[in-house]
Amino acid sequence: MKLLDALKWRYATKKMNGQVIPQEKLDYILEAARLAPSSSGLQPYQIFVISNKELLEKIKAISFDQSQITDASHLLVFAAWDGYSLERIEAVFNKTVLERGLPLDAMDAYKERLWSMYEPLGQEWHANHAAKQAYISFGIAIAAAAEQNVDATPIEGFLPLELDKILELNKQGLKSVVLLPLGYRDETADWLVNLKKVRTSIDKFVTFIS
Amino acid sequence: MKLLDALKWRYATKKMNGQVIPQEKLDYILEAARLAPSSSGLQPYQIFVISNKELLEKIKAISFDQSQITDASHLLVFAAWDGYSLERIEAVFNKTVLERGLPLDAMDAYKERLWSMYEPLGQEWHANHAAKQAYISFGIAIAAAAEQNVDATPIEGFLPLELDKILELNKQGLKSVVLLPLGYRDETADWLVNLKKVRTSIDKFVTFIS
Repeated sequence: MKLLDALKWRYATKKMNGQVIPQEKLDYILEAARLAPSSSGLQPYQIFVISNKELLEKIKAISFDQSQITDASHLLVFAAWDGYSLERIEAVFNKTVLERGLPLDAMDAYKERLWSMYEPLGQEWHANHAAKQAYISFGIAIAAAAEQNVDATPIEGFLPLELDKILELNKQGLKSVVLLPLGYRDETADWLVNLKKVRTSIDKFVTFIS
Repeated sequence: MKLLDALKWRYATKKMNGQVIPQEKLDYILEAARLAPSSSGLQPYQIFVISNKELLEKIKAISFDQSQITDASHLLVFAAWDGYSLERIEAVFNKTVLERGLPLDAMDAYKERLWSMYEPLGQEWHANHAAKQAYISFGIAIAAAAEQNVDATPIEGFLPLELDKILELNKQGLKSVVLLPLGYRDETADWLVNLKKVRTSIDKFVTFIS
């Protein structure tokens, strides 16, 4: 399906039917999310793919009881770095020069410049910036799911500190950012499925300066 | 082109050749960005599409002289609301109930609940949250451009306060968030075009909990 048609087809599914999505579609969506670009290529986030029923019940309880959490086939949790550090940047850049067959010091000057910019901004800024990168991947995952005719519900409505505890994200230097249950719509029980998609009109959304 | 193939094809183009993209492709990318989901459907951002050469030169000067700004066909500037307000939320919800043919008060309770959550969080939080929504649209625009074989460079490296002045965004209650020059790669002059795309390996990027 063309992306634009897929975006018209998709909606924030309010009721899912519990059907499981094929592994190849799940892999496709995760691979699209993995290929998303990020600032300086740091990719400061990861995805947890949860299908454990007990865990999903716990997550639903701290997500305003949204039924998609447990009626989904899989729940994606996007979790971003809790901050930047020279070590984290170095690890990514070392991998980059190795995979590209470049001299080991090829990115040293860039690394120093980047860290001298980031360091004074502090951990809260870092975490916010890392979260924003995760949102790019999140957008692309939403697009990929729609292209594959897999329903998804972008969810910000959960208690991130509670989810961090449940998944022990602190220990991994991560913070939960946003959720994406993947599954299939229950057309008979979803109040939103037949309502019109409403967006800002194109003339108000876009301003041309030519 | 399938989205996954498009994502493999794309890269953060470092040198563009000045060629203009067809209007229908530009419209397609903007429409994809417009259809992106956002928290509570508020769509708290807009896109400025700049092709004015003089203006692009000014923007390049506050964007570390990145040549894509002026070698692109069009520069997209994503600008997000500088804060939420009851009025802004009301305007969106009023439009939503009208277009959906719902009773005029159908979203009143939700509106009150949302504002009672947002108001105490303050304008800095608001602006950050609105910017994150713009990043979802940004991710989808990147995907749409790639699907259309249009090159693009996600750019955070610019001085947002200076850009806000140049585009007079303050007057419109907006803040610049991120840039996306659209155009075509100059394969002979782009140092990045033949380097391997490097990403976190899938086993480190994804954790399955089943």
